[in-house]
Amino acid sequence: MIQNGQLRVVEDYPRPEVKPGWVLVKPIVVGICKTDLELVEGYMGFSGVPGHEFVGIVVDSGDGKFLGKRVVSEINFACGSCDYCAAGLQRHCPNRSVLGIQRADGAFAEFVALPQKNIHIVPESITDEQAVFIEPLAASLEILMQAHIKPTWKVLVLGDGKLGLLVAQVLRLTGCDLLLVGKHENKMEIVRRMGIKTATPQNLAQMKADLVVECSGNPKGYHLAKSLVRPSGIIVAKSTYHQELSLNWSEIVVDEITIIGSRCGPFPPAIRLLEQGLIDTKPLVTAKYQFKDVLKAFEHARDSQAIKILVEMP
Amino acid sequence: MIQNGQLRVVEDYPRPEVKPGWVLVKPIVVGICKTDLELVEGYMGFSGVPGHEFVGIVVDSGDGKFLGKRVVSEINFACGSCDYCAAGLQRHCPNRSVLGIQRADGAFAEFVALPQKNIHIVPESITDEQAVFIEPLAASLEILMQAHIKPTWKVLVLGDGKLGLLVAQVLRLTGCDLLLVGKHENKMEIVRRMGIKTATPQNLAQMKADLVVECSGNPKGYHLAKSLVRPSGIIVAKSTYHQELSLNWSEIVVDEITIIGSRCGPFPPAIRLLEQGLIDTKPLVTAKYQFKDVLKAFEHARDSQAIKILVEMP
Repeated sequence: MIQNGQLRVVEDYPRPEVKPGWVLVKPIVVGICKTDLELVEGYMGFSGVPGHEFVGIVVDSGDGKFLGKRVVSEINFACGSCDYCAAGLQRHCPNRSVLGIQRADGAFAEFVALPQKNIHIVPESITDEQAVFIEPLAASLEILMQAHIKPTWKVLVLGDGKLGLLVAQVLRLTGCDLLLVGKHENKMEIVRRMGIKTATPQNLAQMKADLVVECSGNPKGYHLAKSLVRPSGIIVAKSTYHQELSLNWSEIVVDEITIIGSRCGPFPPAIRLLEQGLIDTKPLVTAKYQFKDVLKAFEHARDSQAIKILVEMP
Repeated sequence: MIQNGQLRVVEDYPRPEVKPGWVLVKPIVVGICKTDLELVEGYMGFSGVPGHEFVGIVVDSGDGKFLGKRVVSEINFACGSCDYCAAGLQRHCPNRSVLGIQRADGAFAEFVALPQKNIHIVPESITDEQAVFIEPLAASLEILMQAHIKPTWKVLVLGDGKLGLLVAQVLRLTGCDLLLVGKHENKMEIVRRMGIKTATPQNLAQMKADLVVECSGNPKGYHLAKSLVRPSGIIVAKSTYHQELSLNWSEIVVDEITIIGSRCGPFPPAIRLLEQGLIDTKPLVTAKYQFKDVLKAFEHARDSQAIKILVEMP
């Protein structure tokens, strides 16, 4: 658990209560996300159990419907009764808690409680190690919910972290002319092997893209994105910054740039793409630890060469 | 003309050359835009004749097609041969000059030269005083080119300057639930008489809009817009700011806000709306000066109570 800015293992953490309409899940594999590392450093003032990328087995279910099923879960727990929920904006419900991030214990535990409406059954053909990627893959697919990417477009992805590598894999399915811009040769090599072009910011040719996805995690990423997008083009904002961003607003107006903030996305298409073998998550797994070594796993996840660190639960 | 940050009247300014494919127009009425005032203060480093909101008569035309016609003109003069022009992005042509703003003399002159492909004939039912508003009305219509505003949406317009008052008139035609937020009672009264609700930033009820148009001309407008737009909502950025804007990028990502920069727009629908009497420009005209008093007219345009100052050309 995370408490007072410290990550530690607790032996006697209470078993979560299963409210009506909720299920209890025993996690099998949990992934460590950049957000988890930030939570340890105080992001969101979170105190509790982290872990929001995971797969597990339903061990308690009110109506028995999901009992024994292998599942993943959407992470935003909406109230279901406010105006936003009524308008279909559950992921933006102002009363929401967020699994392992905000007022809801996550999956780095023996059991995790989840609203039944949030869970999705994982088809047999998807392995545990793949299933952990359904949540970030859904976040990548959110881009296709928000923008109509034409197959003739030039598209750039800035950032070669796990999200950038997933976003690039999703966007190449549109047939677009795609280039991933990163700084880590070992990470870029993964998508290069799939035929995706890559470049470093230094060897980037003068060009203008129709759409740029900003996953760099750094305010410099915005300025690079702005310099690379064509007038009337789109910047998709995927990564949050710790600092305020200072920008030239007039340029956005004069060049008629569209900026689209993009966070979580739909699970069913993420599951379909994995089932159909259209996304390869295997090379994104840097290492898998046993839960007894979870603190080492978190340490490893801080290494800039690491992509995804998984933890196998007892 | 504007020269070295000074506006002055010049008697012997050379008559513009009429290149092949261009026409020569004698302006009848010219409007003073906020941009003109900024040009005097050094914006764009412009030197030459200002004036981009105008109506005039074609007095010289290569093929005679438009001779004697009353016309208005789109203000971006595209090269017609670059990739942007080929892609239909003429208004963003990097080689463009802009009438009375960038490398092209404007309409505060005896004659103005214009590319024939930029001009539009003004129907008889539209007066000279209305025709001067076709350019800013087209800029307002650009919002409808960029966003699909649903008739059930709550929409806010921030700013009660000329642009805000035109934008509000355009947006009310969608049937949306519209509120204009301004600071000048005399200006807000104009749209209130049309049935549009208004408020000051002080008496604004707690609310969330589906779309907010930022026409306030002030970086505070962005922060107000962000506080008033719902998650997954749209901010249309219409006004340029002199200063850099410092903002919380993470909020845009987490709330999945879309920001759309919006500048010039299409003339034909602007002409249609005026012809059909759906836009009322009359109350937006604060005063009309003779050209001999043009310096006084510019002085008057700086008054915060003024909306649109027109100048009748000799």
